[in-house]
Parts: sequence; structure tokens; C-alpha cells
Amino acid sequence: MSEKLTRRADNYAEWYNELVKRADLAEHSPVRGCMVIKPYGFAIWEGIQRELDARFKATGHVNAYFPLFIPKSFLSKEAEHVDGFAKECAVVTHHRLMNAPDGSGVVVDPEAKLAEELIVRPTSETIIWHHYKDWIRSYRDLPILLNQWANVVRWEMRPRLFLRTAEFLWQEGHTAHATAEEALAEAKQMLEVYADFVENVMAIPVVRGVKTPNERFAGALETFCIEALMQDGKALQAGTSHFLGQNFAKAFDVKYLTKENKEEYVWATSWGVSTRLMGALIMTHGDDDGLCIPPKLAPVSVVVVPIYKNDDERENIRRVALNLVEKLKNAGVTAKFDDDDSKRPGWKFAEWELKGVPVRLTLGPKDLAENRAEVFRRDLKTKSFVGLDALAAEIPKLLNDVQQTMFQIAKERRDRLTVEIDDYAEFQARLDGEGGFLLAHWDGTSETEERIKQETKATIRCIPLDFVEEPGRCILTGRPSRGRVVFARAY
Amino acid sequence: MSEKLTRRADNYAEWYNELVKRADLAEHSPVRGCMVIKPYGFAIWEGIQRELDARFKATGHVNAYFPLFIPKSFLSKEAEHVDGFAKECAVVTHHRLMNAPDGSGVVVDPEAKLAEELIVRPTSETIIWHHYKDWIRSYRDLPILLNQWANVVRWEMRPRLFLRTAEFLWQEGHTAHATAEEALAEAKQMLEVYADFVENVMAIPVVRGVKTPNERFAGALETFCIEALMQDGKALQAGTSHFLGQNFAKAFDVKYLTKENKEEYVWATSWGVSTRLMGALIMTHGDDDGLCIPPKLAPVSVVVVPIYKNDDERENIRRVALNLVEKLKNAGVTAKFDDDDSKRPGWKFAEWELKGVPVRLTLGPKDLAENRAEVFRRDLKTKSFVGLDALAAEIPKLLNDVQQTMFQIAKERRDRLTVEIDDYAEFQARLDGEGGFLLAHWDGTSETEERIKQETKATIRCIPLDFVEEPGRCILTGRPSRGRVVFARAY
Repeated sequence: MSEKLTRRADNYAEWYNELVKRADLAEHSPVRGCMVIKPYGFAIWEGIQRELDARFKATGHVNAYFPLFIPKSFLSKEAEHVDGFAKECAVVTHHRLMNAPDGSGVVVDPEAKLAEELIVRPTSETIIWHHYKDWIRSYRDLPILLNQWANVVRWEMRPRLFLRTAEFLWQEGHTAHATAEEALAEAKQMLEVYADFVENVMAIPVVRGVKTPNERFAGALETFCIEALMQDGKALQAGTSHFLGQNFAKAFDVKYLTKENKEEYVWATSWGVSTRLMGALIMTHGDDDGLCIPPKLAPVSVVVVPIYKNDDERENIRRVALNLVEKLKNAGVTAKFDDDDSKRPGWKFAEWELKGVPVRLTLGPKDLAENRAEVFRRDLKTKSFVGLDALAAEIPKLLNDVQQTMFQIAKERRDRLTVEIDDYAEFQARLDGEGGFLLAHWDGTSETEERIKQETKATIRCIPLDFVEEPGRCILTGRPSRGRVVFARAY
Repeated sequence: MSEKLTRRADNYAEWYNELVKRADLAEHSPVRGCMVIKPYGFAIWEGIQRELDARFKATGHVNAYFPLFIPKSFLSKEAEHVDGFAKECAVVTHHRLMNAPDGSGVVVDPEAKLAEELIVRPTSETIIWHHYKDWIRSYRDLPILLNQWANVVRWEMRPRLFLRTAEFLWQEGHTAHATAEEALAEAKQMLEVYADFVENVMAIPVVRGVKTPNERFAGALETFCIEALMQDGKALQAGTSHFLGQNFAKAFDVKYLTKENKEEYVWATSWGVSTRLMGALIMTHGDDDGLCIPPKLAPVSVVVVPIYKNDDERENIRRVALNLVEKLKNAGVTAKFDDDDSKRPGWKFAEWELKGVPVRLTLGPKDLAENRAEVFRRDLKTKSFVGLDALAAEIPKLLNDVQQTMFQIAKERRDRLTVEIDDYAEFQARLDGEGGFLLAHWDGTSETEERIKQETKATIRCIPLDFVEEPGRCILTGRPSRGRVVFARAY
């Protein structure tokens, strides 16, 4: 690392871009809007996948894989869905290239035009429900509890790494049920799975809520969501879970025979989280020195940096350090010994802080003499000394404390930025200032919601699940309101 | 399961298709050549991924993710590569749909034509080496040992589930090295990783070898491969590892500064296995009753089927069975209790044999009275009785024996079908008969190889790594040969 990151206070967007690039998380590709997820960034994503996949399986779901391509006509089958997803997408029109007649390279072979264009999936409801029609005959075939890990493409004119990319990685759950109640319970259950993961593994506090009709997934009757608040006061939707009713069953004619031998349409849910979560991680826990990764997700939890002046010292420290790494491994902690002789300790300190390793141990001759290590925690940037013999027992406790503390810090900030606002001028001023979750009364109409969005760029992030009945007056129109909803500008 | 599978002896191709469908492994999608991998099939693929990923990481590799799309011009940069891969591929030409002016649905928006067409990756050398140019400056940046799990698309006019599909899942390793020796050693190491996995986890014996120039990967200097032999005497290439020399480094101008401060082009490898391995699994271990999955890969290793006449019996057996499943779980064995009351035991037996669960335990009232279970092993179709108290200790040993036996059976068949042939008429007759690996002399020319291919549909699968120097005469031309190579018809 050669120089400091741009400071958040100076240019938050630039800080984000620099951090993503310099911490080796991701970079832009020559294909507009597509990103390369670099090994360090991908290792964090693998952690997200591993934790979520275990939770999906623990709640009875299985994985499968459906095609990348969707026939164009499928998108039109669900009326709302097509409006939401058919617009900005990658369209495959040909299946062959040929050498250019003038020898200038390869060109599209006009003979190889597809009879029907294929869309690179922006989401997979249509292709999956096409297959469910064959899979579902009677109540015995239900529920289907299925998930897929996949890449999807939604064309994006203003890409930002992790936050808005044309291609992104995600998981999409698609379940089929005999009753509306069961489907609704599934949608709520998966929201809770997401909330539990994001809060307890990613250390990001979320508001659980439901979207207004304006903000619903195209084709859903109800969209549940978890909303996180970034440091700059903007919201980030961290996951959604949709109750789709019978819309896709009707569009793809998926019926089942009940126990009473009656034909009924099947009920559906879908739910997903994506590589956007990486953006939430960075903007919740990052600081001017770089990333800070919660221990439960960190590819490396502890880095050991040696300090020495000569080969003898180096060799002594090396022996102690490798022994320590082994002991930590046995205690379930992933530790790395950074023995690179081409870099100075100060450079390494900055580099590992940039990469967000939760704990750093420093070992110098004096530490060895006193049988201790210097322990630095990334979250609070505090140092202490711990005896070498106690480290294997102390580090897991320390990592647990870092995990809790990171959540607490994020939660306190989120709570501080969550305010009840009853005055529209103040509402606007706050949005232009420190932002945050603004709890305000709303008259319940789409028109008002739309006008507020146009005037302030704030949207209703959700109606919280713990909505409190509280008579009031709409912040824009003054009309009666039953309670407060959550407004914010959002990523 | 309603009826028996087509017998292999009657129609091998039909047997394969029926097994894939009825064992719930995969099915065709409405998108030509694309498949749906169903949950049971995907669980096997997850096992393949898990085992391989651990081996990649143990050999120092990390995962990353590169874009799905490749600019058309990239394919042209490596001269041989473009001939191999630019032909049958999915071409994205537009990025938007719009409502048809006549209200008939959605159509491609002619305004949204891309300046340069994008190719859905058929393999990722080009896009990855484009990025390596930025990642590599000096010898300190080498080696790069990287892998990606991804979907790729190669247009396919005659698709067969798992064996030949337009979209398939795979992993592709892409490494960059300072020297030719190191790159070559990497390519060989990864071949050995594949061979070890395929033999010891999938229980499929393979021949390790090197491809002739005709059969090399487009852009490689050397392609190493593992070749398996299916029951019907046809070969299946189970994995390849390529030494790419400096071809891609030159095409994408990737140089590094040596310790001596000289600029050199970087050396490369790439290596991959795909969902084709599922086809190899089926055609190595399947029989007329269905699939047989090696225990190390089986999503469920043991199924417990109860036999009862009334509710009392059912309840007693249930208690014993659940206790048994728990004990097996503690012994590291995934067991499933099939308590479905809507199906008869005979139906369940056939169903679990179709799905290839390695071991079945049957529990009836008489077994309970005698404190035992009937143990059926899928590979040999033999039954025995084991005391209930001994099961938790015996089952892991039995599964280990099944694993070894499956490999031995496959190896004996492969060895029986591997024959030295010196007469061209016999060569042809064998190919039209039981097939197999035909070890024959070859004069070393591409012309002869090509003529044999045209006349017999057999290709040189590989020159074995344990090639034996043995002077002889080419089976076609009679010209001198230094030793035997492996011929076969192949999937």
C-alpha cells in the first residue's frame, strides 16, 4: 500500500471505489457493467455462501440449477413481471460467429440467427415455473423448497462495483406450496433467515419490513425486505423475500390435486440476496484505513506480523509464530503468518488494516523475551499485550468480542441516524444532511410516495414489521396516517 | 417408479436417458441444449465441487470470478483459440427489449444494439489474461494460482444430458508462472489432482495421458488428460489440464520483470472438469436397475426402509429406525429414514436402487425381534443381517468396502476392455463390437490419425503418461512406431 485512502468525509463515493480496488475485492472489466471479483473479495463471498447455504439446508431447502437462458416469450407470461424485467437485459440473437470475409477478424454469422431470442436470466421465476408445471401433480409433490446459486444479468448504465453491476452473483429461492398460509409463512421465514445471517454473521443491523406496492417485486403480492443503513446515511436493501401468490402458477398453468381431489393453483415464494451484500459490508464496517471484516466472515481472522533486525531474530520469531498459528488453527481460528521479507512491518500493518483482518498479532524480540504478543484489534484500533501461552484461549474470546462490538457500533450509529420527523422541511434538510432512516407519517397513497421521491429522492424503504399504530398526519399532504414508515435515500 | 428401465443391452443410449430422468438427476429445458439439474443430481454435483474445491485449496489455489461476457474481439487475439471457440457460441447483440408496437408482446429494441457484440464465455482464458496484464508486474506477483466455478456455453446441436449440453457447469483453473518448468509442473500436478479425485472419490479408473496435437485444446502447447472407459466400451474424457506456454501472455501482452530486471512473457496453464463427470458416473456405475453412487459422493449413503403391517409395528420400527439414523449420523454417515406411508416397501426398494443409494437397511417386525437389520449393498446386490448394536460400527466399514469394490469392478471391466491390437481389421471389428481402449501402434502423423478417425470413428484418446517404448508398425500405414497409443470411440 503506497498511500492513504481518500477520506470518507472528503468523498465517500471515491473512498468506496478506492477501498474496493486497493483491498483487492473487485475491479471493473472491459465489459461494461461487469465486474471481476478478485480472490480476496471472493473468499468473503464464499463465506457468505457457506453460511447462507447451511441455513437454507437447515430449513429444508435443496439446491438445483436452471438454465442461464430464458426464451423471450416466457417473460411476457406474467404481466407485471415483464414490465419489471424485460427492459434492461442481455439479448442473445445468434449462435455462431464466422471469419469475416475481409479477414478482419470474426463477425456474427447471419445464418445463425435464433428463431426466438434468448434473454440472459435477470431472475428465474419464469423458467422455473415452466418446469414446476411438470414436477407438480398432487399435494404429495408439495412443498417444493428449492434454491439456486447463480449469476444473473440486468443491464446497468451506471455501474458501481458490488452495488450495481450488470452481472452479479446471487442465490434465488423458489418455493411452491399448497396453501397461501404456507407460502406466506415461508416468505417470512426466509426473511428471518436473512436477518439472522446479516445481523449475526455480517454484524449489520437491519430493519425487517414490507415494501409498499410501488416498491414491490414485479409479480409479487407482498415483498418483505431487510434494510440496512450505511455510514453515509443512505439505506441499502440487503435482502428480499416475496410472497408471489398464485401469479406465476396462473401464468404457467401450474395446478395440483388436493387431498379432496380438487384442482387448485399452486402458491409461490421467491427470495434472494446477492453480491450487493459485499457493498453493505464495506459501507457498514469500513473506515478511512480500509475494510473491517467481522470475524465470522473473515477469510483470515488473525495475522501475525514479525519484527526483527537480523536473521537470528527472524528465525526465533518464525519458530514461535508458526507454533502459534498451529495452536490457533487447532482452536478453530484461521491465522496467517506474514513472513514476507520484502515488506517492512509498517507497510504490513497498513496493508492488513486495509484488508480488514480483525486481529493482528505483532511479535518482536522484546515480546519474545517477555513471552507475549502485542494484540491489535481492527474494530477499536486498540492494542494490548497477551501472554503467548494464553493466546490460543484468549483469541477466540477476543474475536467473539470483536464480532459483538462491530454489531453494537453499527447498531448505535443506525439508531442515532433513525429519527422521527414530522416536518417536511426538516425531512428534506436531513436528507441533504446526514441522512438516515426517517420515520415519518404517510397517507398511504402511491401518489404521495411518488411525489416525495421526486422532490427528495427518498423512498419508503419499508413499513416495519414492528409497525406501531400511531395516528398522525402525512408529512407531505397532512392527511391522516395510521403510523410511521421508514423513509431514506437508498443505494 | 412405475416400470423398469430399458435394459442397457437393448438400447444403451435410451437406458442412459431414462436413468437420468427417472433418478431425478436432470432434464431438458425448453431452451435448446440447456439442462435443468434437479436437486438429487445437483446434490451429487455439490459433492464433486466440495471434494475438488478442497483439493484445489490444499494445493494453494484460490477462487475468483470473471465476467460471463467476453468482447468478441478478445476471441480473435489468440490465433488458434479463436478457431476452436469462436464458432458455436451464444452472441449477445442487444441490451434491451421493448413492448411490440402492435401489442403482441416484447421485441428486441433496435435502438439498444451493442457497439461490439458480447460472447457468452465458452472458456475464460481471454478475459482472464486481459486482467492478468494488470495484475502482473514482477516475479513477486507470480505465481497466480486461481480457479473459478462457473457456467459456460458452447452451442450444441445434438445435446445429451450431462454429456453434451450448450450450457454446462464447470471449474476452470488459470495459472500464471515465471518459468516454463513451473507451469508444466502445475499442469501435471492438476492432472494428478483430477486423477486422484476421479479414482478415489468417484471410483472411476482413468488413464493419464497427453493428447496428440490434433486433439489439443485450442491455444495449448500440451494437453494432459484423464480418460475413462464407459461400460459400452466408449471412452469419456474426464478432465484436461493444459500447458499453454506463452501463447496467451503474448496475445494479451503479459510480461513480468525477472529478479535480474529483465522483461519476460509469463507462462500459463488452464485446467477444467465439468458436469460431464455426472455422465461418467452414470455410465461407469449404473446398471439395469439404475444408478449406483460411490459412498464418498452419495448425498445419502444409507436408506432405512421399514416393513410393517399395522400402526403398532410401524411405531416400534420408527423408534428403532430414528435411533439408528442418529447413531449413523454420529458415526459420520448420512442416513435417511423413508417413512412414507403412501408407498409400499417394494416400490421403495426399487426407487432407492434407481437412485443409487449405496446401502439399504430393512427393518421388519421379525428383524426387531431378533435385534438385527437386513443390509443390502447396491453394488453387489447382496443381502446380509447385522445386529442393531453393531451397525454404527459396521456401516462405515461396509461403505468403505463398497467404495473399494466399485472401483475394482470398474477397473476390472476397463482392464478387460483394454487390449493390444495389431491388425486393422480386428481394430475395426472391435470398435463395432464391444469397443474398449485399443492399444495400437501409430506412425505419429496427424494424417494417419485423421484417416483412422474418418474410417473408424475412433480417436487417439491419449499417449499414456506411462508410455512404453516398443518398436512396432502403425496399425494403418505399417510405418515404424515407437510404441502404442490409446484409441477408442468416445463420448
